[in-house]
Amino acid sequence: MSQQELSLVGKHLQSRATRSHSFESSPWSEALDLIRDRPDAIYFGDGAPATEVQPIARLQEAALKAWADASGNLGYGELAGYAPLRELILERMQVRGIRAGAGDIMVTNGSQQGIDLIARLMLDPGDPILVEGPTYIGAMQTFDAYEIDYVVIPMDDEGIDVAALDARLDAMDRKPKLLYTIPAFQNPTGTSISLARREALLDLAERRHLLILEDDPYGELWYGSPPAPALRADHPAVVYLGSFSKTIAPGLRVGWMVPPPEMMDLLAMAKEATDIHSNRIATRTVYHAAEGFLDGHVAMLREFYGARRDVLIEGLTASMPPEIEWNVPDGGFFIWLRLPEAVSANEMLVTAARHDVAYLPGSWFYPLGDVRTNELRLSFSSLPVDRIREGAKRLGHAATDFLRNEECS
Amino acid sequence: MSQQELSLVGKHLQSRATRSHSFESSPWSEALDLIRDRPDAIYFGDGAPATEVQPIARLQEAALKAWADASGNLGYGELAGYAPLRELILERMQVRGIRAGAGDIMVTNGSQQGIDLIARLMLDPGDPILVEGPTYIGAMQTFDAYEIDYVVIPMDDEGIDVAALDARLDAMDRKPKLLYTIPAFQNPTGTSISLARREALLDLAERRHLLILEDDPYGELWYGSPPAPALRADHPAVVYLGSFSKTIAPGLRVGWMVPPPEMMDLLAMAKEATDIHSNRIATRTVYHAAEGFLDGHVAMLREFYGARRDVLIEGLTASMPPEIEWNVPDGGFFIWLRLPEAVSANEMLVTAARHDVAYLPGSWFYPLGDVRTNELRLSFSSLPVDRIREGAKRLGHAATDFLRNEECS
Repeated sequence: MSQQELSLVGKHLQSRATRSHSFESSPWSEALDLIRDRPDAIYFGDGAPATEVQPIARLQEAALKAWADASGNLGYGELAGYAPLRELILERMQVRGIRAGAGDIMVTNGSQQGIDLIARLMLDPGDPILVEGPTYIGAMQTFDAYEIDYVVIPMDDEGIDVAALDARLDAMDRKPKLLYTIPAFQNPTGTSISLARREALLDLAERRHLLILEDDPYGELWYGSPPAPALRADHPAVVYLGSFSKTIAPGLRVGWMVPPPEMMDLLAMAKEATDIHSNRIATRTVYHAAEGFLDGHVAMLREFYGARRDVLIEGLTASMPPEIEWNVPDGGFFIWLRLPEAVSANEMLVTAARHDVAYLPGSWFYPLGDVRTNELRLSFSSLPVDRIREGAKRLGHAATDFLRNEECS
Repeated sequence: MSQQELSLVGKHLQSRATRSHSFESSPWSEALDLIRDRPDAIYFGDGAPATEVQPIARLQEAALKAWADASGNLGYGELAGYAPLRELILERMQVRGIRAGAGDIMVTNGSQQGIDLIARLMLDPGDPILVEGPTYIGAMQTFDAYEIDYVVIPMDDEGIDVAALDARLDAMDRKPKLLYTIPAFQNPTGTSISLARREALLDLAERRHLLILEDDPYGELWYGSPPAPALRADHPAVVYLGSFSKTIAPGLRVGWMVPPPEMMDLLAMAKEATDIHSNRIATRTVYHAAEGFLDGHVAMLREFYGARRDVLIEGLTASMPPEIEWNVPDGGFFIWLRLPEAVSANEMLVTAARHDVAYLPGSWFYPLGDVRTNELRLSFSSLPVDRIREGAKRLGHAATDFLRNEECS
């Protein structure tokens, strides 16, 4: 291709959509770049589920069943997903307190597509939306493409600060279109909403007619006692998002949404306009894998991830300098660390990389302009316990070095 | 749920995104509604591929291979798709004249998602885009969600009218962001662009710096001689969309795009923001199914669909009143009929339904406001030959009745 031709396409790109400026960088690559030439580095940045517990044999059997039933099911169809899978999801939703009809469930390509479909339905450019500070990077990636304005509500160890939310809403001229929240074992903080806080949030949502987008990929993965029921259980204006990515496997891209019933037809048409419908064999495979198996599998996952969490907590307790604090999450994949107020986790990352360990700086989990820099996220989901143990040790050395240098500089 | 609660959600829906008004109805259901209580009706509206030729046994074998290789491939990953599948696509693209690198190919959830990703990248609300009149309904469904303005360029039996396009561009204040075109065996008309017209279009695109979105789901399904090479073969500013929906099966939702290389990174981030990536087993399954098999399968499909086309043409020739005209497409799934200028195909559909036969009125394939009403689309892809034969007979009776009544009224 000649230079002239290149610049021809370049000209088109100059006039591309305003939203597309959010496609200019990937949020995931930077920390990895720091350790790319360090083969022994331990990366606490990967929040993916562990590959060791993917139920591959079960999925292989399930795929056989799905394919045995493929005839007549390989055409266009099933916009809302395979009916038996929706029934199965419906039944499983009761664990989270949700009573809905199977017709109220739509299967999506992972819960990420659920975020996208709700954004499509609800969000015009310039609309304000409420998010927790910090919040899930992938959700911001989707919201960014809708050119919305973020309004960041702080969190504490009981979840989103509802009093702050209330005050912030009082101060706003424009009513926000929705609140995006991860009430159980939040990504990135690991925090779960307390029962009292949940009550207050639902009360506020009713009083102020606030639409809630509830993202719940970790709700079943608790390592002590289960989290509070889903918000969707007790409020009609909640869109609930669920996922099999953490309980079965992310590579199959199967999740679901439970929107208010009045939204279902619009969301189905939004989905049709996006990719027509989901892969019909994937939904059957997940159904056959989950049916009569997933409860037991999830019980095993609780032991498995609970052990990883325990090892990381032990390691941090043994290695980290006393100025650094963290929570002990009751579930999910993440632990959130706080450095002293003036210390930058972004800068400490360079030191950490030199110690062959890396994490995601907390600042990445805030929309631009509302950033706190003294926090960081550790994922314990995808690392074997010996690597977690060794990683915590390295992180302790790195933090000790870094804080000492900070003092001396 | 109480009435009060319903109205609470209703209030949220009142303030939904402007684009969402395009989600209020499905374009596909109306013709079906007319014949829903007529179990013997023959529906020429379904443009889906035939279920009889889905290579299910081959896919079952392929799925076994894909699942045997699943370990390590069920996590997040492969944003642009399974590398061997991209290589295979690359090689197959040579049949359409396209020489690209495997890195220039991105696998999508059917080519519908390709349309959506390009719209995401390029289109702001109010942007003008060029479409053929008539054009594919599903593409308009996607574009509608981007709140663009359609500029409709007429077609004739050589494809899009490039002189009309040129004149229209002269008359426009704002440069359109792209031209959406289906150059080979177009949906809905079955028309293919002639070599001379193709030359003229590429010349215009270069002269006027016009970005082209080339949708090519039928390019390999020719029943006489192959169509002109893809536009992407000879112009850098073409985004090519391909699909396995018509050559393997639509229910797997696997297609691809070949954008200009400069667009790839932005499109990948657009995809990540939508659903992270595609199902990794589906892309492996399609790879193993296609590898060493698809050429032979496509050759069989040409015979199979060619025979269906022939039967429909014979049936129309034998049954239709002389005032009605149609083309004989060299490939694809569709035949386009023209009634006398003043006759409405929408009105004739009611008579047709009474004769237990239905089609899609041509007016549905134009954006609102640019509609011609004396045309209709017949799909021969999904009906067995005896049903096509009987359907043509019924349509002949219906048209004869309807035109006679038109004359008498």
